[in-house]
Amino acid sequence: MGRLSALFDPETVAVVGATDREGAVGRAILENLRDGFAGEVVPINPSRDEVLGLECYADASSAPPIDLAVVVVPPDIVIESIRELADAGTENVVVITAGFSETGGEGAARERQLREVAAENDLNVVGPNSLGIMSTPKGMNATFGPEDALAGSISFMSQSGAFITAVLDWANEQGIGFRDVVSLGNKTVLDETDFVREWGDDPETDVIIGYLEDIDDGQGFVEAAREVTEDTPIVLVKSGRTDAGAQAASSHTGAIAGSERAYEAGLDQAGVLRARSVQELFDYARALAGLPEPESDGVAVVTNAGGPGVLTTDAVGDSSLEMADFTDDTVAALTEAMPDEANVYNPIDAIGDADVERFGAAIELALEDPNVGSAVVVAAPTAVLSYDDLAETVIEKLDAYDTPVVTCLMGGKRARDAEATLRESGIPNYFDPSRAVSGLDALARFREIREKRVDEPETFDVDRERAQDILARAARRDDNRLGVESMDLLEAYGIPTPQGEIVDDPERAREVAASIEGDVVMKIVSPDISHKSDIGGVKVGVADEDVYDAYEDVVARARNYQPDATIIGVQIQELLDLEAATETIVGMNRDPQFGPLLLFGLGGIFVEILEDTSVRVAPIGESEAREMVDDIRAAPLLRGARGREPADVAGVVETIQRLSQLVTEFPSILELDVNPLVAGPDGVQAIDLRLTVDADELDTEEQ
Amino acid sequence: MGRLSALFDPETVAVVGATDREGAVGRAILENLRDGFAGEVVPINPSRDEVLGLECYADASSAPPIDLAVVVVPPDIVIESIRELADAGTENVVVITAGFSETGGEGAARERQLREVAAENDLNVVGPNSLGIMSTPKGMNATFGPEDALAGSISFMSQSGAFITAVLDWANEQGIGFRDVVSLGNKTVLDETDFVREWGDDPETDVIIGYLEDIDDGQGFVEAAREVTEDTPIVLVKSGRTDAGAQAASSHTGAIAGSERAYEAGLDQAGVLRARSVQELFDYARALAGLPEPESDGVAVVTNAGGPGVLTTDAVGDSSLEMADFTDDTVAALTEAMPDEANVYNPIDAIGDADVERFGAAIELALEDPNVGSAVVVAAPTAVLSYDDLAETVIEKLDAYDTPVVTCLMGGKRARDAEATLRESGIPNYFDPSRAVSGLDALARFREIREKRVDEPETFDVDRERAQDILARAARRDDNRLGVESMDLLEAYGIPTPQGEIVDDPERAREVAASIEGDVVMKIVSPDISHKSDIGGVKVGVADEDVYDAYEDVVARARNYQPDATIIGVQIQELLDLEAATETIVGMNRDPQFGPLLLFGLGGIFVEILEDTSVRVAPIGESEAREMVDDIRAAPLLRGARGREPADVAGVVETIQRLSQLVTEFPSILELDVNPLVAGPDGVQAIDLRLTVDADELDTEEQ
Repeated sequence: MGRLSALFDPETVAVVGATDREGAVGRAILENLRDGFAGEVVPINPSRDEVLGLECYADASSAPPIDLAVVVVPPDIVIESIRELADAGTENVVVITAGFSETGGEGAARERQLREVAAENDLNVVGPNSLGIMSTPKGMNATFGPEDALAGSISFMSQSGAFITAVLDWANEQGIGFRDVVSLGNKTVLDETDFVREWGDDPETDVIIGYLEDIDDGQGFVEAAREVTEDTPIVLVKSGRTDAGAQAASSHTGAIAGSERAYEAGLDQAGVLRARSVQELFDYARALAGLPEPESDGVAVVTNAGGPGVLTTDAVGDSSLEMADFTDDTVAALTEAMPDEANVYNPIDAIGDADVERFGAAIELALEDPNVGSAVVVAAPTAVLSYDDLAETVIEKLDAYDTPVVTCLMGGKRARDAEATLRESGIPNYFDPSRAVSGLDALARFREIREKRVDEPETFDVDRERAQDILARAARRDDNRLGVESMDLLEAYGIPTPQGEIVDDPERAREVAASIEGDVVMKIVSPDISHKSDIGGVKVGVADEDVYDAYEDVVARARNYQPDATIIGVQIQELLDLEAATETIVGMNRDPQFGPLLLFGLGGIFVEILEDTSVRVAPIGESEAREMVDDIRAAPLLRGARGREPADVAGVVETIQRLSQLVTEFPSILELDVNPLVAGPDGVQAIDLRLTVDADELDTEEQ
Repeated sequence: MGRLSALFDPETVAVVGATDREGAVGRAILENLRDGFAGEVVPINPSRDEVLGLECYADASSAPPIDLAVVVVPPDIVIESIRELADAGTENVVVITAGFSETGGEGAARERQLREVAAENDLNVVGPNSLGIMSTPKGMNATFGPEDALAGSISFMSQSGAFITAVLDWANEQGIGFRDVVSLGNKTVLDETDFVREWGDDPETDVIIGYLEDIDDGQGFVEAAREVTEDTPIVLVKSGRTDAGAQAASSHTGAIAGSERAYEAGLDQAGVLRARSVQELFDYARALAGLPEPESDGVAVVTNAGGPGVLTTDAVGDSSLEMADFTDDTVAALTEAMPDEANVYNPIDAIGDADVERFGAAIELALEDPNVGSAVVVAAPTAVLSYDDLAETVIEKLDAYDTPVVTCLMGGKRARDAEATLRESGIPNYFDPSRAVSGLDALARFREIREKRVDEPETFDVDRERAQDILARAARRDDNRLGVESMDLLEAYGIPTPQGEIVDDPERAREVAASIEGDVVMKIVSPDISHKSDIGGVKVGVADEDVYDAYEDVVARARNYQPDATIIGVQIQELLDLEAATETIVGMNRDPQFGPLLLFGLGGIFVEILEDTSVRVAPIGESEAREMVDDIRAAPLLRGARGREPADVAGVVETIQRLSQLVTEFPSILELDVNPLVAGPDGVQAIDLRLTVDADELDTEEQ
């Protein structure tokens, strides 16, 4: 795969399947290119000499050198056409033609061929089943859509072609411009990760936005996006958020839906800002594309109307921002500059008779305040205020202070010209105060993303071979569900477990119990019995002298309950003082897109009833493991709320990291639950374990 | 106060303070009236004979009879002018003039005079400090704003005049019409409750909307709104939702902010739909004004584009609605009518080449399905689809099926004409799928509000006199904080408390303990000691023989801790089996606007750390008390989650109702906490009590 920039910056674009037949896609693309592209347009069609006044070539070999080919031939000759293009030296191909994996059977086979031919020839392929691509610097519209894009600094990818058509029609009316636009189609070769990388390297792209229904390679995307968001914001609408939506998306794209929680965690870890609607996508993008970065979360609100000022203040309260606390100097200066009836505290109410001078003075004083990181100018129409003049003033102040300012010039027609003026200077005007604040919020959240550098996952010194052996042993038993008998897996990864062992005769049980100080806990160990307590398979606080009989009893009960159960033995475990401890759960399951998804929560009702859990895609480092603990609502319980002694949170955090390493190093572990991981003031102990392994994967790991 | 309808339907409107001076408010109002009002306009000004070509009168007595007077004279002659109007028989007055309570001191005195003169003369007064009022049926614009309203069925009140100006400018562009518009101003006489009642009685008002910063009389508003929302939806933006916003609102209006939780509970109990932004206010209002009521929550989505279809499905998932499950007949008919590649399950994807006929067929089949209560038509622009034709088709289907349909014709200019056509038939078109769904959601939520009839608060047979005595006793002690010594207050209201009593000598302690089966709990009783356990003032599980010594010990510890503490005695209480029980909390505090606010939650961490509580404005009946229990996240714990025996939820519900009655009947109780109220399988018991009383109020109650 070559550099993608060639895709957006070709000298020569061929339309393979060009035609002048009315209503044909091959004509629409050729027309779009002919009318705007600042390079050479080459129609290819063996049955024509000329199309729409352009010289037409029979095939790629007879045509001039082609930098980018747009393929619209029937599905059954797509592969052949691409081979010809590759032979003639073309490296970049957009496949418009549909009829690939989205249609099943034959189409899926064709898609595999497409992947092969692309790999063999090192081709950049967009599609198939794509609307096409656009790049405004060269005036290139290589789509069959009805609208050109305006020029701008937003690069936009979409898994839905219709979404592009709809958005462009609206964006043109709003004056919103784009740099590159890509309809991803089936993403057979190039996908979201490739374009995120490409636009991350492009100095002319200020914001990357996208509409996605799935992400092919979650881990790869997270890695790429993390790097890109050090400089360039990414805002995505990922649809299929809800169960109903996921079902609809899956029937639309044929993709297997990963879990929404995995997407939520993965996109968040990747530094992606997620929009919930088209409107939010552009509310964020407009602010991110045009405005400088705020230096703090303090917002100043300047208005000529109390009510809208209060609404804006509410919106700030709802956001991650806060109302700036003006310094005494600012308040004094405002008092001087404003009439008596004005409010000189934040929100500044310059009152109804404020003209543009008074507005300007208030904005200037607000932006001079060191506690102000950004500002919203909210105006209601009055006889003495010209929105057009106000727009000019806001632009002046933004230029002078380099502090982000957004406007909310309330009203309809009256605000149109001012809105256009503001837009030219990169200042978004929003109809609603809450949307204006959400624009500023996006800026502040992106600053946080840039500032927050995630630490690399730590590699602990573990006994990987021993873990390998334990898993292999299980595989040999042809048993893919492991339990407490595999606690040494945790030990191998340095996770504390209670003293004890699994024994298979009563005499040995007595010996082990004797070696442990105090009473013991005894549990039947059997892969076939899951509710051990219910059948009397667990005894807590057994004295040494009772251990022999207890062993016999526990085993008898298990046999009685299920005569054919495999009984591995009885676990003899040190009895822990759980009075001052808190039960936690650390779990993992594998998401089809994002891989190992770690889960943390407090035991019992907290997970089961309150669903108070946090998740992250593994591997994670210390900061993210710590966030997992802090994210749950019940976190104060671990930290010593209500007079309790604080639990060993550092121990919990380290255990999460070690489990992250374990599940990353052994893809054969499909699911894992340490439940409970008991966290006391002096340390943590993993009390019980369940995991599911993939025997086939295990074999691979063993080799 | 006369019927308010006269305010909106006068024959003659006078402008008191009319002038032709450029830029004067008195001129702007007169111009607005002269240009549109379908009745007589009467300028009043002693220094002119004619204003803007209209005959001008010196005062009300010399003018023709006046149905409505708009007063714009300077603040110091407002009262006099109104007296003259009243003497001349005018009953309806709008006071535009500012300079009343919002300016403090003198203005506040003037506002009291205004209230008096209104009461003496039975006047309907809007304002002061108002932009004015409008009523479109008579073309009456009695405001000094720059815009007339379009005619429509939405009646609109606002506590901010600027908000009205801003909204009208925008609404005119959007083609949104109004019936009556009121700028409430300082609400000295007429307030939100009056207009809710008025518009509730007005058959031509389809929706009542408002922007409010406070509600003067919460209980009165709830009562009025409850009645009105049996027929007419009310949508409000109540600003000052957040702490910052509340502070801003309070500095804007001078109103004491009630708690946001009280507003949330009160407005919800009143059946008010609450919008969080201007956009949401109108997204709701447009759907409620124009569409029929949906018969069920099932939504059908019909689209020509997969991506937007998925986005819409997500929006349904986020809402209180659900995707309709089509019947087999519908699926079969759709399969017949649609091409092979179409998706015939919900969302229906009629695919990109769908023309208006195919769209129409899909919409019709969806609306015929008995599981469909409403529909969203979502379209992306294509070469084969005319939005204008689609609009006509949607209107036809709505008329034929009387099932609500909203549209989301994505795009900009391309959608404008279709949008206007749809609007004429009451169908709102939304730019964003999520907003389209929120419009339908408002319809469904209003149906629920109409269907949900709240039961009247039950009046239990209680010993009110005994409660009165207990409170009076406390007042005589000059003590406004009551504790466990007042548990008989709960008994008087039929709330179970453990067996036992408060004693003041060790011998009596022994006697009481002996009369109670099993061990007892002993607690020091002192208004001065709040953390009883911490100082050793509580003993749990004391055997009869140890009671004498325990008494001495508990008292000694208390004296030692605080020598000057008032010690009422020691409480001897039956030891309850708390193993199978759950601790709950029922509390109350008084909100300045809404009065007694009841709170329910589970004890300990649930309230303190997880903040898992529900609130309602008292008095409440059984259904609302039950909702309070069901609303908390931890409710399953009470209902027997995780193998526990279910607690006596009916007992909890009844206790909440009895406490609701207690705090309603005794306004002297300012705060009350029953903590814990223990709920076991066999019943509930109030274990501890704290309350604060208002001694002055108590005196009143005693008389």
